Amino acid sequence: MATKNGGSVALLLLLLSFLLSSPLPAWGDAPFPVNVWPKPTSMSWAEPHMAVRVSSSFHVVAPSGNAHLLSAARRYAALLLAERYRPLVTPAVNVTAGGAGAAGRGAELGYLTLAVSDLHAPLQHGVDESYALEILPAGAAATVTAATAWGAMRGLETFSQLAWWCGRERAVLVAAGVRVEDRPLYPHRGLMLDTGRTYFPVADILRTIDAMAANKMNVFHWHITDSQSFPLELPSEPALAEKGSYGDGMRYTVDDVKLIVDFAMSRGVRVVPEIDTPGHTASWAGAYPELVSCAGEFWLPDASDWPSRLAAEPGAGQLNPLEPKTYQVMSNVINDVISLFPDGFYHAGADEVTPGCWNADPSIQAYLARGGTLSRLLEKFVGAAHPLIVSRNRTAVYWEDVLLDQAVNVTASAIPPETTILQTWNNGGNNTRLIVRAGYRAIVSSASFYYLDCGHGDFVGNNSAYDDPRSDYGTSGGSWCGPYKTWQRVYDYDVAGGLTDEEARLVVGGEVAMWTEQVDAAVLDGRVWPRASAMAEALWSGNRDATGRKRYAEATDRLTDWRHRMVGRGVRAEPIQPLWCRTRPGMCNLVR
Amino acid sequence: MATKNGGSVALLLLLLSFLLSSPLPAWGDAPFPVNVWPKPTSMSWAEPHMAVRVSSSFHVVAPSGNAHLLSAARRYAALLLAERYRPLVTPAVNVTAGGAGAAGRGAELGYLTLAVSDLHAPLQHGVDESYALEILPAGAAATVTAATAWGAMRGLETFSQLAWWCGRERAVLVAAGVRVEDRPLYPHRGLMLDTGRTYFPVADILRTIDAMAANKMNVFHWHITDSQSFPLELPSEPALAEKGSYGDGMRYTVDDVKLIVDFAMSRGVRVVPEIDTPGHTASWAGAYPELVSCAGEFWLPDASDWPSRLAAEPGAGQLNPLEPKTYQVMSNVINDVISLFPDGFYHAGADEVTPGCWNADPSIQAYLARGGTLSRLLEKFVGAAHPLIVSRNRTAVYWEDVLLDQAVNVTASAIPPETTILQTWNNGGNNTRLIVRAGYRAIVSSASFYYLDCGHGDFVGNNSAYDDPRSDYGTSGGSWCGPYKTWQRVYDYDVAGGLTDEEARLVVGGEVAMWTEQVDAAVLDGRVWPRASAMAEALWSGNRDATGRKRYAEATDRLTDWRHRMVGRGVRAEPIQPLWCRTRPGMCNLVR
Repeated sequence: MATKNGGSVALLLLLLSFLLSSPLPAWGDAPFPVNVWPKPTSMSWAEPHMAVRVSSSFHVVAPSGNAHLLSAARRYAALLLAERYRPLVTPAVNVTAGGAGAAGRGAELGYLTLAVSDLHAPLQHGVDESYALEILPAGAAATVTAATAWGAMRGLETFSQLAWWCGRERAVLVAAGVRVEDRPLYPHRGLMLDTGRTYFPVADILRTIDAMAANKMNVFHWHITDSQSFPLELPSEPALAEKGSYGDGMRYTVDDVKLIVDFAMSRGVRVVPEIDTPGHTASWAGAYPELVSCAGEFWLPDASDWPSRLAAEPGAGQLNPLEPKTYQVMSNVINDVISLFPDGFYHAGADEVTPGCWNADPSIQAYLARGGTLSRLLEKFVGAAHPLIVSRNRTAVYWEDVLLDQAVNVTASAIPPETTILQTWNNGGNNTRLIVRAGYRAIVSSASFYYLDCGHGDFVGNNSAYDDPRSDYGTSGGSWCGPYKTWQRVYDYDVAGGLTDEEARLVVGGEVAMWTEQVDAAVLDGRVWPRASAMAEALWSGNRDATGRKRYAEATDRLTDWRHRMVGRGVRAEPIQPLWCRTRPGMCNLVR
Repeated sequence: MATKNGGSVALLLLLLSFLLSSPLPAWGDAPFPVNVWPKPTSMSWAEPHMAVRVSSSFHVVAPSGNAHLLSAARRYAALLLAERYRPLVTPAVNVTAGGAGAAGRGAELGYLTLAVSDLHAPLQHGVDESYALEILPAGAAATVTAATAWGAMRGLETFSQLAWWCGRERAVLVAAGVRVEDRPLYPHRGLMLDTGRTYFPVADILRTIDAMAANKMNVFHWHITDSQSFPLELPSEPALAEKGSYGDGMRYTVDDVKLIVDFAMSRGVRVVPEIDTPGHTASWAGAYPELVSCAGEFWLPDASDWPSRLAAEPGAGQLNPLEPKTYQVMSNVINDVISLFPDGFYHAGADEVTPGCWNADPSIQAYLARGGTLSRLLEKFVGAAHPLIVSRNRTAVYWEDVLLDQAVNVTASAIPPETTILQTWNNGGNNTRLIVRAGYRAIVSSASFYYLDCGHGDFVGNNSAYDDPRSDYGTSGGSWCGPYKTWQRVYDYDVAGGLTDEEARLVVGGEVAMWTEQVDAAVLDGRVWPRASAMAEALWSGNRDATGRKRYAEATDRLTDWRHRMVGRGVRAEPIQPLWCRTRPGMCNLVR
């Protein structure tokens, strides 16, 4: 609404219009008749709120030269006309009448123009995702202006959420007189999906990435392999998937990967591959039994002696850093994966390296007897793999354990901060602080806030603890990280909470993590959405209002609407309130 | 395997076969290559385990005279051929060769015969559901013998689970040399679905009932209405749904109800309607504003003073027993509902009658000032409605509150035990004990074990508790009845735990309850299944092995298989373990 001419007059008129219309929304804070999720950094909608019909020939005018952007432009144009989203609450808007267009039908929006400064900026960490969206009052024109194609995609998504199906008009309407200026707070806003514990068909991965893009999430952290299975077909290491996958129909081919990476890139979503090593590698033992310590052993020899475990959960096996061939295989794996995935990040895992497993290996026992330590052993491994990653021009990402684990950890020399990022999962903000104080960039995935699997019990069998019928109110119900992390908890979490400004600068963002010991395609959507949406907004535009208060109360109806819209787009997201609440503002609050 | 002739010889041979084959399963306890859920009371499968091909013209021979049984017979015949269930682990069986049948294909099972003693016994509480299933060794014949049509349906379900698709044979196989004798421990094995908080399309209700039947669950407790909505179209009270439903497309017509009742009856599932009164009736105020106390009021005037609440959750409104018209409406509702639902039980609700709501009503204030009490007020209401229910030859079911609530409760004279059943939900086994000691039959639904909604947080908005980032390990995560009740907890629960034999006789069974403040069709299946299956087995054949130990360890693989089968049948049930566990017996246990 800021125009070069008559700025003061416009401002005065604006103030007057605010004073005269009732109830008065606070500038920038109150929900509009139609809202966008994540809430944009700034959005204005001239009052009275207008909407214009979308022409049946609506199209997006995109610059040529970026195939992914062209793909996105076509996709959003089709979505505008096909989605026919029916809001739960009919938006109170005036539909623009008169003007040019088919006789008697009033103004129609015929196209949206994309203006991109740097069409060829690659999709990498930290790329500019900002955009401005303007839909002129009479719907005479609509423009998305962005620095990069990825910002343009964010703008297209926002535009799509400002459109809806109006039954009375029998037309798709889009908000008019709208200006959005938007940019993310954090460059890394991700979802991690574990396809090692459970295989997910490619279609489910694609649907998930599509939903991520709708939430302006930009990193699909693909935890591809684990002890339970190795589903990735690698050209120089075919035996890994041949012997380590769950079976023929449960593998990802090279073509599958290309499809997924391309699909994601057309949505501005980076795909970060994780091949977890040296722990979590029992599945490698099918191809390389000689390289995996304690493979096939029962994970917990003595249930009363947790430190003696061979693995953090059923499925024991860790690569043996003393075996020379380990490095040959690692080199092949790293090189193949990096060739398949263009992203600048390569996640090498390194979580939960379990002493009991290495201690059970005779060659390692001999090494320890000679004065070796498990930490030096891990450092040998990491120290060899890290340079392979960096030599291919990738940043290495590890779980926090590699540095912070009490029993087995490496020194900074093996993982230089300049080329390494660490991902947290334990001890909330404490570990984030340790990481950034050590000079590392941090991706925050604290289990007490962002682990989506928590709270549905435990998959371990033959556990007599369940024999005790005493009420389990107030306990974790069997889940190590229970209880279930509600959307409110996810939303409210501050990934840089408790850090100084300087420390906070090293927090690049966060990821919700979908571990899949007890999740498969039948229930995936409901476990991920809309809780991932809650993180998506907190990391895009924050979780506070203009006064600095946490804004989950105001976010509730917006999230109900957004969840409803996602369901219409084919995502089986979980509801957060009964429908009754949506049509009775404030009536379902704890405090009115 | 018990035959009239040569019993001792057979027994000796049996013992010898057990001694000679390895590993030796304990009689009746160890899983077979193919299992049935719930585990039958007794099942034997001659060794070596044989299977016979199912003929492509397989059909079920059913006695005529019971349309529902004929419908079931056709349905199971089709299921046998169409299901093509592929087990996770290929059953180790020998396929019967030679004998009559198409050249070279060996023996085939052409049909299953149903023999029913009392074809016209109605589907009511306590009806005989026992059956015997015999599939002769060469597959020469298969018979289900049952006292009633409903037992025959249980037998058909068992038979369907003994069949599977064998890729190698390219045929449907069914176990042969099998004898099952089966009957439920408890006559009441139910699922309660709340369609008052959230509307569920008829298709989702049908799919749920179908899944229940597969689990031999026999009571669909339909909590049809609540404060948030009244979706049931009643001929003599059309305004209730007109004004109280969520909208046009979110109602159940008389035809919908007929369809559901008939669909359920063809599956041996009773449909018990619940019209919750006098609390939980805010939705009646659209049609009858004058009859509903505190309707439209904010539910919690003072968040720091819980006793002052007007309702147990957002959505305040309770029928006013002082208004004469209340009884006219109640009479119409009760009569219409009883006419629509043939079941012998009528659930009248009566949970969470909240003092604050009635205390806020001027007419009730006057009544109290005259010396009245809230309990006497409830008794006036219940005392008037109960006879209406009984006069239509129904047993009245109420939530435990009607008797046990501290603040508002009735005396036994209003709810005679002979014609009343109470359903528990608080205080675990303690309230069950109170109920049966007072002489009432009990349906157990203790929230700490059987409430399926627990553990996913809370739907109430604007709750600043989430501002506190301290780890919520060990808390309920916002859910009043958290944490989530895992399948192990559900499975292990003893509904008559802690009761004497005499007291236990009054426990008729249990129900898992799916409250739907945060559940709709998008996520329903995963929330209900397979946890409801866990209760289904515990109430059908128990949760202990022959030695009296809880058998969840042995049940785990069987439940993984059953869950997999349910998914194949279209139910999006949640997985309980990674696939890795199913192919490595014992490796995912806590104790091997």
